[in-house]
Amino acid sequence: MTAEENFAKLGLVLPPAPKPLGVYKPLLVDGRLVYLSGHGPVNADGTLILGRVGKELDEEAGKLAARQVGLTLLSTIRTQLGSLDRIKRVIKVLGMVSCDADFEKHPYIINGCSELFAAVWGVDNGIGVRSAVGMGSLPGGIPVEIEALFELH
Amino acid sequence: MTAEENFAKLGLVLPPAPKPLGVYKPLLVDGRLVYLSGHGPVNADGTLILGRVGKELDEEAGKLAARQVGLTLLSTIRTQLGSLDRIKRVIKVLGMVSCDADFEKHPYIINGCSELFAAVWGVDNGIGVRSAVGMGSLPGGIPVEIEALFELH
Amino acid sequence: MTAEENFAKLGLVLPPAPKPLGVYKPLLVDGRLVYLSGHGPVNADGTLILGRVGKELDEEAGKLAARQVGLTLLSTIRTQLGSLDRIKRVIKVLGMVSCDADFEKHPYIINGCSELFAAVWGVDNGIGVRSAVGMGSLPGGIPVEIEALFELH
Repeated sequence: MTAEENFAKLGLVLPPAPKPLGVYKPLLVDGRLVYLSGHGPVNADGTLILGRVGKELDEEAGKLAARQVGLTLLSTIRTQLGSLDRIKRVIKVLGMVSCDADFEKHPYIINGCSELFAAVWGVDNGIGVRSAVGMGSLPGGIPVEIEALFELH
Repeated sequence: MTAEENFAKLGLVLPPAPKPLGVYKPLLVDGRLVYLSGHGPVNADGTLILGRVGKELDEEAGKLAARQVGLTLLSTIRTQLGSLDRIKRVIKVLGMVSCDADFEKHPYIINGCSELFAAVWGVDNGIGVRSAVGMGSLPGGIPVEIEALFELH
Repeated sequence: MTAEENFAKLGLVLPPAPKPLGVYKPLLVDGRLVYLSGHGPVNADGTLILGRVGKELDEEAGKLAARQVGLTLLSTIRTQLGSLDRIKRVIKVLGMVSCDADFEKHPYIINGCSELFAAVWGVDNGIGVRSAVGMGSLPGGIPVEIEALFELH
């Protein structure tokens, strides 16, 4: 099964690839590595999921927001590289959760993205190293931002 | 136009390259990659810009602080590598803003650094991937800290 | 002196290598590079150091927590790669401190890890680039989380 075939089986819809909110590239290829800028949770209609995890968004909504960030990263990959099949494996994910000081379940939230990647590229190639941490704030009031590093085939 | 020529045209002054505040190297070369430690905004007289963005510093002051971080990164590059011309392109920037939970304009702030890099190395090579995020706090009370990854010629 | 010999001289005890709290690998090898996921401070009995730096943990306790994160990273390296001697040098460390907005001594805290790495791999190879920053919160209420990038021999 290819990554595109795995993704098709999930029955999920990719949001439009977001345009940069500042002076940066959404994706950059350096040899066999692909760097993805920090992405937020773009909905299928192009709007953003907003709110703080543990306040406006409970844990389940936060995890779904992280999955939506994952879908947004996939959209940028497909838009810029043509196919999810270009990616060989996930190397690194930095998952950033906007939440208050007493929030503790960052890994659970970011699993929303990581489980999506594992479903698309498989348990071995779809899972890389990761940090899941709590930010003081995120751009535009989004609940989750994720940047990632992939290896090309 | 070379990076040094582009920089000269801007009429900006590089601050002194900062000495490490802890046990780390300001810059490390690994093959054709150059890693820069997180840098703060050093003024031309060696002092630091201090304060929190959205409180002591308004948005314009915050963006100027990010540009000053960019100048400080350039100073470390020139001091350690001899010339800005050694850099081929920007690969990755992590822009960290010290601000309260309701701050939303992190990309605008970090553009202060990214626009400088684009002016020095050009729109294609001077712009890489980026995350711009809000930190709970930063060392010594600085408003912006930026780490970066470059490719050498 | 090898890294293992240097470590033995320190008289410190490695905690058990932590199992992932989410969907990620603790360590990933990519060619001659080794990526380490964000690690927390695991005690020798497998429990975690908890609390916020500047509140439950004063500066000295925070620095010791960062050293304990360093020991936990060493434990993952030895468990996954067989020996600390597999590592040639430290390339990059991202040190994240859980603390309130007025905390300023992040570099001092993260030195707890960096000084350990310098003692194990030497002042030149054991010290890389670094950012030391303040997070709004960290998983499970840990005071320090550190991710790192190493080069293999």
